[in-house]
Amino acid sequence: MKLEEAISKFKPKVEEALKAIFDEKIEKAKAYGDENARFYENLKEFVLRGGKRLRPITLIMAYHAIRKPEEELDELIKASTCIELLHNSTLVHDDIIDQDELRRGGPTFHVKYERLLGQRAPPKARLLGLAMGILGGDELFNMGFEVLLNAKFENIRVIRALGHYVNAYRKVVNGELLDLIMSIEDYESLSLEDYMLMIDLKTAALFKESIRIGATLAGADDEITNGLSEYGELVARAFQIQDDILGIYGDEKTLGKPIGSDLREGKATILVIKALEALRGKEKEQLLSLLGRGSITVSEVNMVRDLLKTRGILKEVQGLSEALIEKAKGKVRCLDIREEAREYFLNLADFMIRRRY
Amino acid sequence: MKLEEAISKFKPKVEEALKAIFDEKIEKAKAYGDENARFYENLKEFVLRGGKRLRPITLIMAYHAIRKPEEELDELIKASTCIELLHNSTLVHDDIIDQDELRRGGPTFHVKYERLLGQRAPPKARLLGLAMGILGGDELFNMGFEVLLNAKFENIRVIRALGHYVNAYRKVVNGELLDLIMSIEDYESLSLEDYMLMIDLKTAALFKESIRIGATLAGADDEITNGLSEYGELVARAFQIQDDILGIYGDEKTLGKPIGSDLREGKATILVIKALEALRGKEKEQLLSLLGRGSITVSEVNMVRDLLKTRGILKEVQGLSEALIEKAKGKVRCLDIREEAREYFLNLADFMIRRRY
Repeated sequence: MKLEEAISKFKPKVEEALKAIFDEKIEKAKAYGDENARFYENLKEFVLRGGKRLRPITLIMAYHAIRKPEEELDELIKASTCIELLHNSTLVHDDIIDQDELRRGGPTFHVKYERLLGQRAPPKARLLGLAMGILGGDELFNMGFEVLLNAKFENIRVIRALGHYVNAYRKVVNGELLDLIMSIEDYESLSLEDYMLMIDLKTAALFKESIRIGATLAGADDEITNGLSEYGELVARAFQIQDDILGIYGDEKTLGKPIGSDLREGKATILVIKALEALRGKEKEQLLSLLGRGSITVSEVNMVRDLLKTRGILKEVQGLSEALIEKAKGKVRCLDIREEAREYFLNLADFMIRRRY
Repeated sequence: MKLEEAISKFKPKVEEALKAIFDEKIEKAKAYGDENARFYENLKEFVLRGGKRLRPITLIMAYHAIRKPEEELDELIKASTCIELLHNSTLVHDDIIDQDELRRGGPTFHVKYERLLGQRAPPKARLLGLAMGILGGDELFNMGFEVLLNAKFENIRVIRALGHYVNAYRKVVNGELLDLIMSIEDYESLSLEDYMLMIDLKTAALFKESIRIGATLAGADDEITNGLSEYGELVARAFQIQDDILGIYGDEKTLGKPIGSDLREGKATILVIKALEALRGKEKEQLLSLLGRGSITVSEVNMVRDLLKTRGILKEVQGLSEALIEKAKGKVRCLDIREEAREYFLNLADFMIRRRY
């Protein structure tokens, strides 16, 4: 199945399943009071505001790698939302940690509540937003667990899949911790190794475990589960590297973020780490002085773009990401899986570095 | 089994099991870096700093209500830590929300990190503490899931017990939300009904679901599971009411909190709600003016204590709590459960209103 076909087939179904899950919670929460019901309405709005749903779709396709779902398709789609709920849980908490105010063209969850409840108690607005953000992320994680727990597959498969869910979350938490620590260290003490570990935990784990959950629910053997999950790790690394590239070279319109925002925030991206390794003297000092400068201008961003290009750093990083994709595709070609899933995974790998948003 | 006997038998074992769980995590986290390993060390210190462990012990005794654990005792003790991990997860997040700095004679988790990481980046100290507190609570909740998920009992029992774990957390989150909303409402708009719902969700649910988890792991039928869990709700309500009484009448030394701290923080306790219902005119105004006054004096606290006594409010609330305990004991007397568990539950009920700390 082609990537586009899988997206157009499953994305609406995943979103419908998410809607139904939230609607049930909204209904039940009414017994606790209006504000509790609104809490679930706001969680619903946040989760359904957007997103490509690549994680649940990939979970579904990992199941397809083993068997074509027949009458269990609805259960599989419902179960696949677990990873979207988990992902959104980490976004809500991460947005508090990063003090981000915008997400998918709207306010982040805690900022939304800062405004909603802040009207009623202005001096406590920030604290109320923070509190609701903490509770919101907590409940999304809990809901994701529940969705998988209630999935009607063999008990032993559900228990194993939940183990992957727990692992995914642990890795994201540890990755965020590393990211936080990296943000208070000197740029020059950061190595490519630190960076790769951080993205493996913070980004790749979720992708990898989505695949493990799908394969586990289908009853895959270890060889296929491990092979697919290695594939998942490789493409997710390439995905993150592409994210870093877009963070500097991306177009404001298609990306939805201001130009050079990664530079402005002083993020330790792979381009920055590689550049600080390669550059010397004045060029290095210049880059260091621009990192994290809130007032960075468009012409300064362009200067960094040119510098990374002329010094071959962009090319090197692109090469790294292409190599990851080739390796990932090689893995998928060798596995004894169903052809429609293979096509999807090969397509997805290419998309990871082709994407412009 | 008498309450004291159960505590002296199981408390050390529960704490040993907790230690072992954290030690394994510390070891594994070393692969992610020193700071990750220290994260688990700090979580361990926080969880092991104190606490009566009544929730896991009660979970264990709910199992005893059905059958005496033989060779599965170690597994049961390990599984019982899930509820202590969940409880601590909610404490870590709640301490951020309430901006509390002290817990069990030491700094709250986020304040500890505010100091630890704040040394390295002073302007970001608060944010770093907050971030680590969010991640810490997240991981404790996740660890609780994992402990129960890995418990070696029949798969179907584990799956059902996990359902209770999910419910417990959902209720705590919804209870904290209600508490938050109550904190920005006028005292006079609060009803006893709001208060009871809030404590049922925020406090009683955890106790009730601990019992459900223990009974479920033992394979109890619905009659016993429901009967015991109704008992749990009743005693937990009494526990919270006693907490409210101690919050005003408690002794600074045994309680570890400054005298009148509930009044200082302006908490909507049952005594306050009942008093505002009963008092009129000047007395009511006086109480309203003292609620939430940071600078409240010892003599003002004593004045409130006397007022609640002479107006019969303390007595009324104590009567309410005694009635709950009598009802709870009645439930336990009628259930077809093992005698050593019955003795424990009857003892525990008495302890709930006898306790001075």
